Amino acid sequence: MIKVGIVGGTGYTGVELLRLLARHPEVELKAITSRKEAGMPVADMFPNLRGRVKLAFSSPEEAGLEACDVVFFATPNGVAMQQTRALLGAGVKVIDLAADFRIKDLAVWEKWYKMEHACPDLVAEAVYGLPEINRDKIKGARLIANPGCYPTAVQLGFLPLLEAGVADASFLVADAKSGVSGAGRKPETHILFAEAADNFKAYAVAGHRHWPEIKQGLEMFAGREVGFTFVPHLTPLIRGIHATLYARVGTDVDLQALYEKRFAGEAFVDVLPAGSHPETRSVRGANTCRIAVHRPHGGDMVVVLSVIDNLVKGAAGQAVQNMNILFGLPEDVALADVGMLP
Amino acid sequence: MIKVGIVGGTGYTGVELLRLLARHPEVELKAITSRKEAGMPVADMFPNLRGRVKLAFSSPEEAGLEACDVVFFATPNGVAMQQTRALLGAGVKVIDLAADFRIKDLAVWEKWYKMEHACPDLVAEAVYGLPEINRDKIKGARLIANPGCYPTAVQLGFLPLLEAGVADASFLVADAKSGVSGAGRKPETHILFAEAADNFKAYAVAGHRHWPEIKQGLEMFAGREVGFTFVPHLTPLIRGIHATLYARVGTDVDLQALYEKRFAGEAFVDVLPAGSHPETRSVRGANTCRIAVHRPHGGDMVVVLSVIDNLVKGAAGQAVQNMNILFGLPEDVALADVGMLP
Amino acid sequence: MIKVGIVGGTGYTGVELLRLLARHPEVELKAITSRKEAGMPVADMFPNLRGRVKLAFSSPEEAGLEACDVVFFATPNGVAMQQTRALLGAGVKVIDLAADFRIKDLAVWEKWYKMEHACPDLVAEAVYGLPEINRDKIKGARLIANPGCYPTAVQLGFLPLLEAGVADASFLVADAKSGVSGAGRKPETHILFAEAADNFKAYAVAGHRHWPEIKQGLEMFAGREVGFTFVPHLTPLIRGIHATLYARVGTDVDLQALYEKRFAGEAFVDVLPAGSHPETRSVRGANTCRIAVHRPHGGDMVVVLSVIDNLVKGAAGQAVQNMNILFGLPEDVALADVGMLP
Amino acid sequence: MIKVGIVGGTGYTGVELLRLLARHPEVELKAITSRKEAGMPVADMFPNLRGRVKLAFSSPEEAGLEACDVVFFATPNGVAMQQTRALLGAGVKVIDLAADFRIKDLAVWEKWYKMEHACPDLVAEAVYGLPEINRDKIKGARLIANPGCYPTAVQLGFLPLLEAGVADASFLVADAKSGVSGAGRKPETHILFAEAADNFKAYAVAGHRHWPEIKQGLEMFAGREVGFTFVPHLTPLIRGIHATLYARVGTDVDLQALYEKRFAGEAFVDVLPAGSHPETRSVRGANTCRIAVHRPHGGDMVVVLSVIDNLVKGAAGQAVQNMNILFGLPEDVALADVGMLP
Repeated sequence: MIKVGIVGGTGYTGVELLRLLARHPEVELKAITSRKEAGMPVADMFPNLRGRVKLAFSSPEEAGLEACDVVFFATPNGVAMQQTRALLGAGVKVIDLAADFRIKDLAVWEKWYKMEHACPDLVAEAVYGLPEINRDKIKGARLIANPGCYPTAVQLGFLPLLEAGVADASFLVADAKSGVSGAGRKPETHILFAEAADNFKAYAVAGHRHWPEIKQGLEMFAGREVGFTFVPHLTPLIRGIHATLYARVGTDVDLQALYEKRFAGEAFVDVLPAGSHPETRSVRGANTCRIAVHRPHGGDMVVVLSVIDNLVKGAAGQAVQNMNILFGLPEDVALADVGMLP
Repeated sequence: MIKVGIVGGTGYTGVELLRLLARHPEVELKAITSRKEAGMPVADMFPNLRGRVKLAFSSPEEAGLEACDVVFFATPNGVAMQQTRALLGAGVKVIDLAADFRIKDLAVWEKWYKMEHACPDLVAEAVYGLPEINRDKIKGARLIANPGCYPTAVQLGFLPLLEAGVADASFLVADAKSGVSGAGRKPETHILFAEAADNFKAYAVAGHRHWPEIKQGLEMFAGREVGFTFVPHLTPLIRGIHATLYARVGTDVDLQALYEKRFAGEAFVDVLPAGSHPETRSVRGANTCRIAVHRPHGGDMVVVLSVIDNLVKGAAGQAVQNMNILFGLPEDVALADVGMLP
Repeated sequence: MIKVGIVGGTGYTGVELLRLLARHPEVELKAITSRKEAGMPVADMFPNLRGRVKLAFSSPEEAGLEACDVVFFATPNGVAMQQTRALLGAGVKVIDLAADFRIKDLAVWEKWYKMEHACPDLVAEAVYGLPEINRDKIKGARLIANPGCYPTAVQLGFLPLLEAGVADASFLVADAKSGVSGAGRKPETHILFAEAADNFKAYAVAGHRHWPEIKQGLEMFAGREVGFTFVPHLTPLIRGIHATLYARVGTDVDLQALYEKRFAGEAFVDVLPAGSHPETRSVRGANTCRIAVHRPHGGDMVVVLSVIDNLVKGAAGQAVQNMNILFGLPEDVALADVGMLP
Repeated sequence: MIKVGIVGGTGYTGVELLRLLARHPEVELKAITSRKEAGMPVADMFPNLRGRVKLAFSSPEEAGLEACDVVFFATPNGVAMQQTRALLGAGVKVIDLAADFRIKDLAVWEKWYKMEHACPDLVAEAVYGLPEINRDKIKGARLIANPGCYPTAVQLGFLPLLEAGVADASFLVADAKSGVSGAGRKPETHILFAEAADNFKAYAVAGHRHWPEIKQGLEMFAGREVGFTFVPHLTPLIRGIHATLYARVGTDVDLQALYEKRFAGEAFVDVLPAGSHPETRSVRGANTCRIAVHRPHGGDMVVVLSVIDNLVKGAAGQAVQNMNILFGLPEDVALADVGMLP
C-alpha cells in the first residue's frame, strides 16, 4: 500500500483527491492537513465522504508526512516550495498541484507569482506532470509539478499541431472557458452564486498566470518562440474547461489523422470523430480530455476544441495519474469513472 | 458473468444504468434496445460512454433478450408489462424501472396510469424493490418493481416513524423537490433550460402518480390507512431529490435513536447527526439516501429531511442494488461511487 | 421631487433599490453611503447602473442624510436603530429594510437578533410595511419596518385563511424555498457558485429569524396564538421565493372565492385561477406576489403556493411601494416592470 | 398611438416584444397571432404578462394585421417573406426579427437557409436594422431586417476597427457564447435543462447561418472582402451573448479613443473604460451593448469583448428601437430598463 499524505485538504482539489483516493485499492490515506480545521473530521466538511473517509484534518506538524510515500500539495501557491526539500530528504515523493514548480524560468515565475522562490534548484529538478508528453521522466521523478487546469486543456489541444510543425507558431489563440470551481473554495464576491450564475464574462485578459505556463509548453513542443494569446472566461459551470484554439495551418495537412496518431494509446485523451463538438459534461468526474479538430469552410484556420474536468484531468485526477506512474501502477487505477451525464 | 439486457436505453435511467454497469465486474452487457436508434453506437448518443460501452442500440426483436440472465426495463410506463411474461418464461429475471408493477391495487394503478394492465397476476407476484424493507423477498424474486424516485426518498424518510407507530398517521405531509432529470429526456417545453433554469414551481398538486405508490408503502409500514399529502416541485438541479417530511409525534420519542437503529447496517441509508441538513450534492452520483431528523422548537411537529440522487438510489442505482441481491452479490458492487462534490 | 438617501448601498437590496429608483420620476437620489467604498462611483461596482446612476458612494458622515425626505436602510441588522432617531428628529422619514423594527416584542427580538435594542420606543411607533394589511397606517407613518422576504410570501399566503378564521391555527406549516441572493452579497463559502449550484438543502430548521416575524403576523391575522412550523431551503435560483403552505380547513369553504375577494383591488397580489402553479420567474424583477390555492383530493388539507421576487416584493420593491404610499403617490410608480420571462 | 401587430407570439422573441411593448406609452397592441394557440389568452402561456397584456392569440386570418401601423414578425425563417408584400401594400411597416431580409446576396441566403426566396425585390429594399450604422436609412424605410443576435454583438464589436481600416481584415475571429434562449422555445433534446445545464460546448463550427450575415456586415464596414472565422458556443445562461473578438492591429493605434469616439452619442452602446471585462448580466433585460477593448501584453493582437442580451439588443429590444426610429420617437422609449443585476 502506498502511504499518502495531503497538505491542504479544505479546497476543491483536496476533496477531489479524497473522492478519487478513497477508492484507490493501493492507497492508504495517512493524513490530511489543515491548520485551521485541525481535529475536524474531513467528512464533516465534505459530506459526500461520510462513511468513506474516516480521517480528521490534522495540523501540519502532527501529520507525520515524512513517513508517507507520497505527499500531494493541494495548497495555495508558495506553500509547497517551503516544505518540499524536507520531504524529499525524507525519501517522500512530492506532487504539487499548485504552481510552485511548473515554470522553469525563475524570473518569469517570480514576476507572475509575485514572490521569491524558496528552492530554485528543485524547480530545475521538478518534472512537469503532463504524462502525455513526459511519461518517462515522471517514472523516475521525485518531484512532480502537476499542470494547471487551463494549461492541460490548451497544451493537449495544440500539441500535435506544434510537434508536427504544421501551424504558424507566431499566431496561436486560446479562448478558454472555465467552470467556477476553478476559482477555488475561498469565499470571494465575484464567485458567489448570485454573481456567477446566469452570467458570463472574460477576466484577466491583460495577463493570467497560466499564460506563461502554457507558453513554456507550446514553445517546447514547437522548438521555437511562439506568439500566444490567452483569454480566460468564467462560465456558470461547476466543473469543466472548454478551450477553443485557433491556429493557421496549410490546407494540405490531414489534421484528423495527425491528432489520432499522436494520441493513439493514450488512455486519457480521446480524439473525437471529425465534425464533433465535445461537451464538458462528457468528462464530468472523469480523467479524460476529449478533443475535436475542425477546419471551417476548408480554409487555413484550424479550430481545436478541447474539454476536461478542471478538477480531474485538470488537477486531482492528473495528480493521481502521476502517482500511479511514479509507483509503477497502471495509469487508470482509481481513474476509471465514466463521466457523469447528465 | 451476469448477462444483462436493457430495454429502452435512450433515456436518463438508461444511460445511468450503463454508467454503473460499465464498471460492474460481474456483468456482461449483451444488448441495449431502442427501436428508433437501432444501429447507432450507444456512445454516439452518450459521449461519456466513449471507450467504455462498445454496444450499439439494437431493435427489440434482434436483441436476444431471452438469452440474458436479467433484463432491465428503462422504458415508459406500460412497456414492461407487455414483455415480462415471455422473459420470465424463458428464465430471465426482470427489473422494471417504470411503474408497471409497483402498485398492488389494480384499480388504483389503472386509474392513475390510464391504461388496462396486461398481466394482473404478475403484479401480485412482483416484489417492490426497496431493499431496506424487502431484502429477503428480493432475494428469491423473479420480477422486481423498482421504486419511483420520490417514493424512495419519501418512504425511507417516513419508515422508522410509521413502523414504530409513533406518528399520527392521519396527517403526513411530503413537500418534495426534484431535479429536472426526473422529468425524463423527452423534449417538452416546460423542461427546456430557458424555462426551468432560475425558476421554481410546484406541479401536480392536485395529484401525482407517485402519491398512490407512496401511500401504499406508508400504509404497509403503519399497518393502517394514512392521510397523506404530497406536493412535488421542480427545482433547477440536474439531479437530486430533497423531501421535506412533516408529521406529528409525541414529545417523548427519541427520534434520532429511532432512525439510527432502524437503518443500522444499511449500506445505502445514512442517518446524519442531529441538527444536520443533508445536501443533494452529497449524494450526486451515489446510491445513498441521507436523512436528518428535526423537532423544531422542541414541539410535536417532526421534520425529516431526506435526499437522494433521483437517477441512482431513485432509479438505476437501486436497480443495480436489486440485481446484486438477486444474484447473491454484495449489494455495493459497482455502487461504491463517492458523491461528486462539488 | 422626493430627496432620497440610501444607507448601505453595496448589497443586493441596495443595488435593487437603485435599479428601481433610477427610473422613478418623482425621486432625486441624493446619497448612497458605504463607509468602505466611499468615493467609488456606484456604477463601478454595479455595471448595470452605468449611465443611469451618477452618484459615488459617500461616507455616512458626509452624505447629508438629514436633508433628505426619506432614507432607506439597506444595512445589516442593528444599524438602522442607531441612526433612526436623529433622522426622524430632522424630519426625515425612514424605511428600514433590515429587521430592527419588525418585531414588537422586544424580548423576542433581542433573543433572535442577539443584541440589545437601541430604541424600544421607536419599535412601538414603527409601522410594519406590508401594504396589503397596513396601508392606512403606512400613510401617516414616520418609520416603516419593511418586511422580510420570507415573511412577505408566507404572510400574504396565509392572510385570507386566518383573517376568515377558517383554518386550524394550531397547525400551520410553511415550507419555503429561496434563491441565493436572499443570503446577501457578503462572501461566505456556502453561497459560492460551486457550493450552491446544482444543490438543494434545507437550513436553519431548528429556528430561523423570520419565524418569530411571521408568527407575529399570523397571530395578528388570526387574533390568537398559532402553531407554526417554518422550514426554509436554499435553491439554485438567483432570485425568487416559493412558499408552499399547509393548513387544515373544513371542506365547505370556497377557498378560491375567499382569496380572490381578499386581494381584489390589490395591484401587487395576483390570485391565480384554481389549479394553477405559480412560477418564481413570472415575478422576476416585478413587485408582484402570485398565489394559488389547492385542496388536493378534495380533503381538508389546503395547499397554498405563494411566489415573490425576494429582492422586489420581498425587499426593495416593497420599500418603494411603501415610499409611494408615504408620499401620496400611486403605489405602482417605478414598479410597473413586467416580470422577466425567460 | 401606434397600432402594433405581432405575428408569431409564442416564442421568446414574441414574449419579449410583449414585455417591452406592454409599457410603451405610444403603442396599442392590436393582435398577436398564433395559428396553434388561437383563442388562448397570451397571459395563460406567459404568466409574467398577467394583468398587463389582455389580448388572446388570434389566428393570422382574423388578426386584422393590415389595419396596423407596424407588424413585427417573430416567426421562424421563411414566414415573413410570404406575408410582407401584402402588408407593405396595405401601408403597414414591417419589422422582421427572423432572417428573411438580412442577406442581400440571394444565392448566399438560399444556400444557408435552404429555401427559395419569395420576394427578391424586397430583399433589395429592406434596410438592415442596426441603428448604429443605418439610422438614417431606417427612418425612411418600409421594411426592416432586424439583425440576428450574434451579428449584433459581433458587428458592433468589430465596427470601429474595420471602419477605421486599422485591422488586418484577412484574419478576424469571433469566439461567441450564447445563452440557451437563443436556441428558441421549440422543445429539442439538446436544450433541455438536464442537457444544457452545467455543460458547455461549441456547435456548428463547420458553419452557422449567422456567419454570412456577419461577414456581409464586416465587408461593408471594411469596404473589402474579409477572412472571418466564427465559432458559436452554448453556455448555461438563460440570456446573454458574450463575443470575444480577435484581430491584428498595428501597435500605434489608440483603440480606446477609437471606440469611444465611434460610439459617442449612441444611447445603447457603452464603451467601458480600458481594462474592463463586461458581464452579460450587466445588460440582462436591457437594450445595451457593452464593449471593452484590450491589447494583451501590448502586442498587435487586439481582443474586443462585446456583450448583449440576445433577446433585447439581440432581438426584441432592437426591434422596438427600430420601431421608435421609424415613427419618429426618441429611441429609448420603452427601452429604459436598467439591467437586472443580480
